[in-house]
Parts: sequence; C-alpha cells; structure tokens
Amino acid sequence: MERIDGRTNDELRQIHIETGYVKHPEGSVLIRVGDTKVICNASIEERVPPFMRGQGKGWVTAEYAMLPRATEQRNIRESSKGKVSGRTMEIQRLIGRSLRAVVDLEAFGERTVWIDCDVIQADGGTRTASITGAYVAMVLAFGKLMEKGTIKNLPINDYLAATSVGILEDDSERLDLCYEEDSKALVDMNVVMTGNGEFVELQGTGEEATFSYTQLQKMMELAQKGVEQIMDQQKQALGKWCSHIEEK
Amino acid sequence: MERIDGRTNDELRQIHIETGYVKHPEGSVLIRVGDTKVICNASIEERVPPFMRGQGKGWVTAEYAMLPRATEQRNIRESSKGKVSGRTMEIQRLIGRSLRAVVDLEAFGERTVWIDCDVIQADGGTRTASITGAYVAMVLAFGKLMEKGTIKNLPINDYLAATSVGILEDDSERLDLCYEEDSKALVDMNVVMTGNGEFVELQGTGEEATFSYTQLQKMMELAQKGVEQIMDQQKQALGKWCSHIEEK
Amino acid sequence: MERIDGRTNDELRQIHIETGYVKHPEGSVLIRVGDTKVICNASIEERVPPFMRGQGKGWVTAEYAMLPRATEQRNIRESSKGKVSGRTMEIQRLIGRSLRAVVDLEAFGERTVWIDCDVIQADGGTRTASITGAYVAMVLAFGKLMEKGTIKNLPINDYLAATSVGILEDDSERLDLCYEEDSKALVDMNVVMTGNGEFVELQGTGEEATFSYTQLQKMMELAQKGVEQIMDQQKQALGKWCSHIEEK
Amino acid sequence: MERIDGRTNDELRQIHIETGYVKHPEGSVLIRVGDTKVICNASIEERVPPFMRGQGKGWVTAEYAMLPRATEQRNIRESSKGKVSGRTMEIQRLIGRSLRAVVDLEAFGERTVWIDCDVIQADGGTRTASITGAYVAMVLAFGKLMEKGTIKNLPINDYLAATSVGILEDDSERLDLCYEEDSKALVDMNVVMTGNGEFVELQGTGEEATFSYTQLQKMMELAQKGVEQIMDQQKQALGKWCSHIEEK
Amino acid sequence: MERIDGRTNDELRQIHIETGYVKHPEGSVLIRVGDTKVICNASIEERVPPFMRGQGKGWVTAEYAMLPRATEQRNIRESSKGKVSGRTMEIQRLIGRSLRAVVDLEAFGERTVWIDCDVIQADGGTRTASITGAYVAMVLAFGKLMEKGTIKNLPINDYLAATSVGILEDDSERLDLCYEEDSKALVDMNVVMTGNGEFVELQGTGEEATFSYTQLQKMMELAQKGVEQIMDQQKQALGKWCSHIEEK
Amino acid sequence: MERIDGRTNDELRQIHIETGYVKHPEGSVLIRVGDTKVICNASIEERVPPFMRGQGKGWVTAEYAMLPRATEQRNIRESSKGKVSGRTMEIQRLIGRSLRAVVDLEAFGERTVWIDCDVIQADGGTRTASITGAYVAMVLAFGKLMEKGTIKNLPINDYLAATSVGILEDDSERLDLCYEEDSKALVDMNVVMTGNGEFVELQGTGEEATFSYTQLQKMMELAQKGVEQIMDQQKQALGKWCSHIEEK
Repeated sequence: MERIDGRTNDELRQIHIETGYVKHPEGSVLIRVGDTKVICNASIEERVPPFMRGQGKGWVTAEYAMLPRATEQRNIRESSKGKVSGRTMEIQRLIGRSLRAVVDLEAFGERTVWIDCDVIQADGGTRTASITGAYVAMVLAFGKLMEKGTIKNLPINDYLAATSVGILEDDSERLDLCYEEDSKALVDMNVVMTGNGEFVELQGTGEEATFSYTQLQKMMELAQKGVEQIMDQQKQALGKWCSHIEEK
Repeated sequence: MERIDGRTNDELRQIHIETGYVKHPEGSVLIRVGDTKVICNASIEERVPPFMRGQGKGWVTAEYAMLPRATEQRNIRESSKGKVSGRTMEIQRLIGRSLRAVVDLEAFGERTVWIDCDVIQADGGTRTASITGAYVAMVLAFGKLMEKGTIKNLPINDYLAATSVGILEDDSERLDLCYEEDSKALVDMNVVMTGNGEFVELQGTGEEATFSYTQLQKMMELAQKGVEQIMDQQKQALGKWCSHIEEK
Repeated sequence: MERIDGRTNDELRQIHIETGYVKHPEGSVLIRVGDTKVICNASIEERVPPFMRGQGKGWVTAEYAMLPRATEQRNIRESSKGKVSGRTMEIQRLIGRSLRAVVDLEAFGERTVWIDCDVIQADGGTRTASITGAYVAMVLAFGKLMEKGTIKNLPINDYLAATSVGILEDDSERLDLCYEEDSKALVDMNVVMTGNGEFVELQGTGEEATFSYTQLQKMMELAQKGVEQIMDQQKQALGKWCSHIEEK
Repeated sequence: MERIDGRTNDELRQIHIETGYVKHPEGSVLIRVGDTKVICNASIEERVPPFMRGQGKGWVTAEYAMLPRATEQRNIRESSKGKVSGRTMEIQRLIGRSLRAVVDLEAFGERTVWIDCDVIQADGGTRTASITGAYVAMVLAFGKLMEKGTIKNLPINDYLAATSVGILEDDSERLDLCYEEDSKALVDMNVVMTGNGEFVELQGTGEEATFSYTQLQKMMELAQKGVEQIMDQQKQALGKWCSHIEEK
Repeated sequence: MERIDGRTNDELRQIHIETGYVKHPEGSVLIRVGDTKVICNASIEERVPPFMRGQGKGWVTAEYAMLPRATEQRNIRESSKGKVSGRTMEIQRLIGRSLRAVVDLEAFGERTVWIDCDVIQADGGTRTASITGAYVAMVLAFGKLMEKGTIKNLPINDYLAATSVGILEDDSERLDLCYEEDSKALVDMNVVMTGNGEFVELQGTGEEATFSYTQLQKMMELAQKGVEQIMDQQKQALGKWCSHIEEK
Repeated sequence: MERIDGRTNDELRQIHIETGYVKHPEGSVLIRVGDTKVICNASIEERVPPFMRGQGKGWVTAEYAMLPRATEQRNIRESSKGKVSGRTMEIQRLIGRSLRAVVDLEAFGERTVWIDCDVIQADGGTRTASITGAYVAMVLAFGKLMEKGTIKNLPINDYLAATSVGILEDDSERLDLCYEEDSKALVDMNVVMTGNGEFVELQGTGEEATFSYTQLQKMMELAQKGVEQIMDQQKQALGKWCSHIEEK
C-alpha cells in the first residue's frame, strides 16, 4: 500500500526550523514538519514554582495548545470551555518531561524555562514536532542567558528530538505519520530520543489493536533512523550552540 | 515630541495582509501592522447558536486570544486560568459587533461565521488589527461559499476597517499608536469605520485623564484618514471580491 | 415619532438620589433614573491589590450585578453559572475607569475603594445610572475618611456623571433611552463627562447600523446637556461636600 | 443579662413587609426584621427542571444571596469567586424545602416558582426573614396566576413563617437573635412552622456547645410564640389572599 | 406496617467499626451500619487555615464524598462536574461542626485534623454513620499524637455519635432509616448527641410534610436510645482511649 | 542492591482479587497488589456518549481517583480543587483505552461500561493495578448482562493485565515497583498486555534519565513474565467466565 504523499515507509516529511520567529521570547522557533506548523517559544522566568523553592535548582515546564482552526474541523477554544482537555495535559506533561531529561537543572539557578508550543496548522505529529522545536527554542533561550553573562555554560547534556512511528492496516510499519495515516493507524508510537541514541520516552498505543514484540523492534529501528535525520535539521538551526552541546 | 519610530503624527505603520495563511479555514489571513501580527481565521459552521435557531438568519461571532509570549512579559494562558479575562471578552464582543454591522445576516442562511483572531506578536493596536484582518478573512470565507454555489451573492454591504488614535503627554493627537505610545497615552480611542465613511464603533477612554470636544474632532479626522489607507491594503488582499462588495 | 413616555428628545427621565441607603458601607446611595433603580455602595479597604502594593497610591475598582428579576425575564444568577458574563465585565471595567479619571489616587494612601453597583430594577441605562450613583457614594466614602481624620482633603478633582444617547429607527437622536427605546435603537452611545465639560469615556455602537459624523455631533450636544442636569441632582445629594470638590 | 436592643427574651424585632417592591416579578416583597432587609422576588417560569418533566406537577426552588456590603465587612461576590459557598447552598435548599411543605405541587401545572432572596442589609436572621418574606412573595405570584385565570385555586395549604431562637452565654433562651447576639450564642436554632402550629424544619446547632432536652423545649415554646406574631404581619401583607389560604 | 428488614421501630441496624483500615492516616476506620459502609480517615496537618493563624488553637474540618457507584444508580463524580454539590457541602459542614463540639481546640496547638468520610456503599444514613465513624478516627489520630508525645492529654470532652429517626407514611416513628425507608419518609431527622445525653445538632425536615410537637418528642426518645447503643460500639473500637475520654 | 521487601528483581508482590465487593455495581472488585488497594466498579449505562450515538456500537470509559489519604501525605480532593489533574486524566484515558483493546464494541449494543477505579491505599503501581482489576470487573458486568439475557456472548476477545517495570539507581531492571522503589527509579515503564502475549500499551519514561535498547529488551522480558502470573489470579477470580473468553 502506497503512502498518501508518495513517501517510502522509512521516509520523513520535509522539516524546516525557523529561529527568531517571535521577537519577545528568549528563544522562538517556527517548526514545520510537512503541513504541521508549530510556534515554540521559550521564556525565562526569574523564579521557580513553589514546590521547588529554596533548592537552588531550575525547572523546565511546557504548555501546548492548538489554534481553534489548526484542524480540519474547528475545535472549541480551551479558554472558552474553562478547562484544559486530558489530551492537552498529557501532551504538555510529555514535552516538559522530555526536555528535562537533557537539561542540567542544577546549572542555571532558581529559574523556570516556560515552553509554549502553539500549533498553527495540524497535520499529524504535533506533539513530536513540538518536542523537536521546543528543544531548539530552549537551547536558544539558554544561549541568551549565556550571552548576558547570567550563566557560564549551556546547561544541556545532549541533543533531543522526537518522531512518531506506526502500524497501518496493511501491517506495514511507517515513519512520521501524517494526519491521514495517523487516523487509520492500528498502532501509534511516539519516540523521544537523545543524540547518543538512548530513549527518553516511548509511548505506544494499540487503538483497538495490539502489537507483537517483533513489530515493536521494527518500529524502534525506524524511529532511530528518523530521529537522527531530524537532529541534522536541529543542528543547522542551532549553529554555534552545537559546539557547546557537544562538549559534554 | 517625536514619535519613537519616526513617523509623523498622522502616519500609519506598515501594513501587510497575507491571505491563505492556514490551510484548513474557509478564510485565513496573517495581518501585520508594524510589529503586531495577528492570525485571523474565518470558519463556516452549518448552524447558528440556540438563541437564533429557526429565524432563517446567519450569525457572525468572534474569539480573540494572545499567545502567552506575544508580549514583552509572558502572560498566563487563559485556558490554564480556567477563565477568559474581562479584556478578552470586551475585545471579542467588539470584533463580532463590528463585523456584523456590514454583513447581511439574512442572506446566507442558518450558518455561523466563527472568527478567530490569535495574536502571535503584540506591539499595540491588536484589537483594531484584528478587526481589519478579520474582515478580509470573513469576505474570503463568504467567497468560498459562493464558489461552492452555496450562496449566490456576497452578503457584505461595505468595507470595514479599524484603527486607533490617541493623545500623548505632549497633548499631540496621533494615529495608530504602537505599544510604547499606547502605554503612555492619556487618551486612547478605537475607531471602526465603513467604506462610506460612517462610524460603526467609537470607544474613547481617558485613562486617568479627560479630553475636550475639540480634541475629539481632531482624533476623528486622523482616524478617518487612517482607515481610508488601511482599506487600500484590504482591497489589494481581496482582489476579485472587491467588485462584489462595491456592487452594493 | 413620539417617545413612549411622552418626553421630548432632549429630556431626561426623573432622577432621584437617596443617600445613606444601606447602613454598613462608608458611602451608600440608591439612585433612581426613571424606573431604573441601582444600589451603589462604596467600601474602603485598608490595602490595595497586589499589583499596586508599595507605591503609596490608592485604587478604585467596581463590581456590577443585577438581581435575577431586575428585568422583565428572570436571568440566571452569575454565581450559579460560575462565571461573570462579558457584558458584566465590560460594565464594571467602565465604571472603575470612569471614576478613577476624577480621583487623585496619590492622595489617600494604600487603600482601595470598592464600588458595588447592584441593579434592583432595570429599565435601560443601568450602566450610566451606576456611574452617576457610584460617584456620589464614592465621594461620601471619602467624606467619611475625612471626618475620621484619616485624610485631610477630598481626593476628588471634579464632578462626574454619565448618560446615554441614541438614534432611533426614525433617525431621531434622543437623550437617556429607556429599555423600550434602547432595545430598538440603531445606535447606542454612553457618555461619561466631568463637571468642566470634558469627556472621560465615549462608547458608541451601531447595532447592525452605522452613524455619520453629523449624527455624532448631535448626540454629543444632547449628552452634554443631559449630564449638566444630572450633576445638579448629584450636588443636592452631596450637600456640604460640593465645596470641597469645587475648591480644586 | 439585658439584650443589646432592650427587648425582653421573648420579644421579636419590628417586622415590616412591603409588597410590590420591584415591578417585574409576579410577586415582590421587601421584608425588614429589625435592621435586616431582604428583597424576596417570586418569578413564574412556564416549565419545570428536567428531572420533573412529564409528571404534570410544578416545582418551587429558591436562590439566596447577599449584596457584598450587606454586612459590616465587605464579602467577596460569589459570582467573582466563581462558586456558591456551602453556607449559601444550605440556605437556599432550606428556603425551597420549607416553601414546598405548604404548596400543593400538583395544583399549578408544569411551572416553576423561582424565589430570589437578596439580602440588602444584614443584621442576623437573614435566612428566617427570607423564608417569611418569600412565602408572601410566592402567594402573591400564585395570586397573579389566579387573576390571569391560569389556575383556579391558590395552591397553598397553610401559612408558613420562620424565626430563630438561641441560647446565650448566660444560658438564657432568646427569641429572634440580632447579629450581635447571634455571633455570641452558644446554640442557634432556626424553626420553620405552619399556621396550624406544626414544624416544617428544625435546625439546631451547638456551636462548640451542646444543649439539653429541657432547653430544647424552652426554645420550641419561644419559637412558636414568635412565629404566631410574624404570621399576623404576613396576613396584613397578603390581604385578600388570606381567605383563599384559610379555606383549605 | 412492618419494616422492610424486619426490625422493630426502635431497633438499630447492625453496626461494625473496624480500626486501622487504611495504613497511612493517623486514624482510620471502616464503619458499617447495615449495608452502609464508610471509610473515615483522620489526618493531622501541622498548620491551621489562614483565618485561624496566630491564635494558638487547632481546627477540625471534614470532607465527605461518595464513590460514584456507592448508590443504586451511578452518580457523576464531583471532580468531573468541577464542583461540589449543595448536599455534599451541607454534610461536610455538619460533620465538622459536630466533631468540634466535643473537641478542646485550645489543647492541641496550631494543627488541623482533616476528616475524610468516603462512602463505599450507601444504604441510608451515610451522614450519621460518617459522624459516628469520624469521631472514632479522630480520637485515634489524637491518640497517635499522644503516643508520639506531641500532646499530653486527649483533647476530647465527651463521646459523640449520630443517628437518624423519621416518620413513615403510616405515621410510625422509626429509628435508623435504611435507604428504602428514607426515600419514603414524611419526616427525616438527624440527631447528633454527646455521651452525657445532650444535643449537638438536630436537623429535622418535613419533606412536603410537617410534624407536631408530640411527634418531635417521640423521635427524640428514639434517637437518644439509638445513640446510647451506638456509643457502646464506639467504646469497643476505642479500647484504651475510653478512659482518657471519661476522665473529663 | 536488595529490594526493600526482599523480593527478587523478577518477583511480583502478592496479588489478591476479591469479587462482589460493593453490592450495587454490575461488576465490583477489590484488588490488592502488595499494599496497593483499589476498588474497581463496572457499571452498565443504557446509552452511549453523544459522539457515538446511532452507530449501534457500545463504549467503555474509565474514571480514576484516589482517596485523599490513600497516600503518605494527604492530597487535596479533586472535587474541592474543582478540576481533575493532568495525572488523573492521563491515567483514566490509559485505563479506558487499554480495556477497549480487548472488547468487541460492536457486540453489546448502544451501552456504556463505566469503570470506576478508586484507590483506597496507594503503594506504587496504582494505574496498573487499576487496569488489572478493572478488566475483571468489566468481564463480570458483561457476565451479568449475559445472565439477564441482554447479550448472548461475552464481547471479550482476550485476557488483559498490566504491570510496571523499572530501572533503579544501581541499573538493575525490576518488576512491579512499590512506591519506595518507584520514587527512586531512573526509568519507569507501564506495560499492558493481552493473553496471547501482545502489547496494548507501552509507556516508558526516563525521569531525568534515559535508557538503551538493551535495557528496553530486558524490561519487556520482565513485564511479560509478570503479566502471565497476574493473569493466573484474574482467571481464578473470573471462574466460569474464563471458558467464554477462551472460546474466541
């Protein structure tokens, strides 16, 4: 079965990362993965949440939202509903947790990095695109702190990127599902990995279906390959900051 | 006293209107007024709110939001606070009311036009930029309905655009305040006008200050001049749809 | 076209201001404008909101509500709905802003004046009646602070009152619309003015209609005339405090 | 120990019931019990809540609120807090339940009587004053339905009134506590009774104290005496409707 | 008319109190009254709520909830609804107030005892079972504070238990209503009493019915008898702590 | 490094499943996994949520909560906070999705199975214990529908159970973490599997840590072994219903 956009099963969509997209945030990125577009802003706040005060450590937290018409059908705005959906909470917890895995929280004082991922246009893979873009925005924000002399070193241990893999109705494993594929997939798996090839998060779900250990292995292979290519794009966007990351 | 960006007192900032910005909505616009950037999406829903059912008429309603880091300081997301602020409500009611003034609600059946104005970057005048951009997005959405044959005529009576005027500390009246000016203005006035030079909305506020009838007159003159120029930009963005509007 | 209550187009309804209406507040007023009745209470709190602390200045803020059956149809209580409507927020922001325009915030220490406007019976013009009544309640509350010796001078720069003007279906401009007129008006404008004839707020709205510059001018004239007469009533209610206001 | 206002222990405060207070509601009453003032409005709605539909029966429900400055200290408005307090809920459930005890729900069709008790000024006993006033407003609203020919008979089985009794620090039992007494009372009991001397509600609370069976008996005696006198006031306010109630 | 479970009118259901039910709380009890089962946990918090700070006194407060399927029909979870119902608030206020009547708040420092009553299975009388069980859990929690040496004496003045009485359709007064009886009762009365036979709370309600003074007296007798027997069960559960209570 | 409770790294805690725990629900289970205790109730509702109406299919949905003192420190009740936390939402979505993977939604008509998992006592692994217990409760509820003749066959395709695995600070992989271990684990992975050894959900998280592909493989092995043993307990609890499941 051919893919709707003609890709091979192990082929990513086009990725483009534009830095400095919004002028106010310390780090700001517009990431496009195929037709998915997400603005990722990183803001530095000069304090930590109450549960962390007095420990001399920093914190990284994330929020995620979609514009109401990022999708084919308009969604009701979460501010109008007066509450954040379970899906949104799940995603923003995932983004925050993933980023923290490569950050040295002890190394930038009692500060919070707020990550805001706002989906402008959605075509599948918004959560993994958010992680990939947010990583770049976060590094840029830390870079700004270095340039201002607030911190001496980049408190980042490694690269970090994410992608999705899945199993379609014809039992084929595929890399980087677009919305059309995602909505028909039997199994959907989000994988967050570091530059040295280790896993940070693995979330696989059989939507009214199951998957075998062999299938799991094949999906891991695809994900690994995809993440490596995504990191090439991140490195281009990060420019001079790469050497600071690779020192570690 | 010179303006911070070197403009004369009766000079607008650069305006740019990009159509087709997001792919899903029936009408989608990215409007830039100086450093203020707003995505304005218009979505057609095939029903009206409960209070209007069975009258054979349509409805136009608007929602407005800012990305958390559209501003110098990060704002808490309204979905996280669980409620929409008074300021937001005021603005979205203003946008909806303004648009309805030039729409023939009887002429497009029991449908709702949802306008979503999402501020990506804020530098003063976000509510007037939203109205100006939303008007274009709305016309494009109606245009799509015409192209699909759902409606025969464009249910639009006239052009519509908005700008701000104000009085600064040196008592000068100025057109199209940027954030720096707006935050120091003694008087702030938002003006929404039609193509034939009539007023739709006039909201003038002395923030711990007052203004005289003479000052009111001077501000009206500035606004009128500004709105005319803004409409030139709208016409370029609307292209072929202008003739449908001007028929009326 | 005759007015429903036989008034001429430039004629106000009967106004009555009763002071000392509720015993606990520092200032308490029952204002009646025709059949509209509003209780306006002013309370002094010995602190300011968090965003103003440490500046040595005071604050004036307002809340507005209607009893559920102040209107022809019973409205659901906002406390039951769990949120304040956009209309209510708009009105209470307007009341607060208007009052602050004539108050010297630097002159009464870190205190907050809470204005509560509760509409007992509604027949049009509840927001302008609220401003007119709230002004009197606020002056009385400051008066009580003077009598207790807490402050030396009345921190009030001028008189303040509000009224509405509008354009009816027959294109006539009219002063002080009652509910019956308001619900049919093409244009509705609320005007807040000071004792020296300057504007504080001007909010004009064409409800699915527009208005010309000439009509704007005629409405301003009516409003000016109306506000002057309303201030005569305020002066009677304020008694001895008038001389303190007029000193300035 | 003498009472603060010089009353004997078995003496009520002055009661005054003014009918027709607000013009829109079907029944409207301003009740004063000493310095406690409550507006009680009764509104007829032409349907019942979902859980009662299709049974051919009516419903009576009540809401209760205080103006923020009805009390010595200003209270935060429940609409601003976004939720109704436990105290308010308790009171409005009590008012509704009490009224339903003397209403023939089968006799006025699928209609709801909404009772709104809004405390303008509080000086103790606001919940019992509300019940007493609400009863009158409800009878007047049913009276209006009779006059319009909607119902043939008054669906009311008996009179209904309420008062409070309590035990003070000197172990004296007292009738109709004012705020000063109430705040110091060891035991506080609210009693709702019918015209034939039966109990509808009895809510006695030892606030960090207890009471004996003998004390309970003495309080019941006081309550009974008080309620009889309150009913005399209700009868005056109800005028011609008394004969309809007494027929039953 | 015979009771559905064959009891005589003055007979309690089987009561069983199991202590140490959950391992974490300072005091934990599973109480069964017939088929009603409630987990009552008492937790000690090392501070008091804001309104009590700095007075050197402690506080006792309670929360009450039902599992969604504790009842015949599944109820929507209050956390999903986003608010606590009026019934729940009424009950938790009642539990807290009742317990405080026998606690010496001055005697255990600025600490809060949190009582959590969670109904696992409901068959009538959940609020009185909660009070009875919560009393035991609270004493056990204070006992733990004594054993740790935090306090020297048990800050408890007396025993405390609760039961319900009611009047059924055949005018019979009955003790300890099960759900089947409760749902048909004309009058429902909850009685909270101390070990020395005094009343703490008395809440009698005629649900669309009334009751006479004679009936009140009969119900009080039943309640008194029932509470005495319930206290026998409490004493067994409390074991060695009884002597500390009886010392007072 | 030895485990705190003396288990070997591939050893489960004691599991006990008690059926019929609460009398009202169609299926009710108390599951204990070590010191973790969860009540799992399954309720049948005779309709589906709005988004599924008219498709002739059923639905399975889950809710999860903890008693406030199920944990070492008391948690604020989510009903008091007025919103459900992100963690709770994540868990209840996981439970529902997992169960649906083995249910034939087409085979039981337009009905909803509500699963309520209420944690009475928590000691790690509450979400996996919930899934394991909920599966049993759900099968019992379907069994009741079969016994009533509402459905002919058990709409269940396979067994389903869940467990956790993790990596501790000494890099050892361990099965079924208790709270003490979980709070110190570098990696935490929840695995939901079917009777035929396939995966339904895999959620692995490096909490400020990462894991390699080799470690992933070891964890999968442990999980598989654990789930098999847990299913033995489920089979004992399910008794006669096992043959219906195994037919498929």
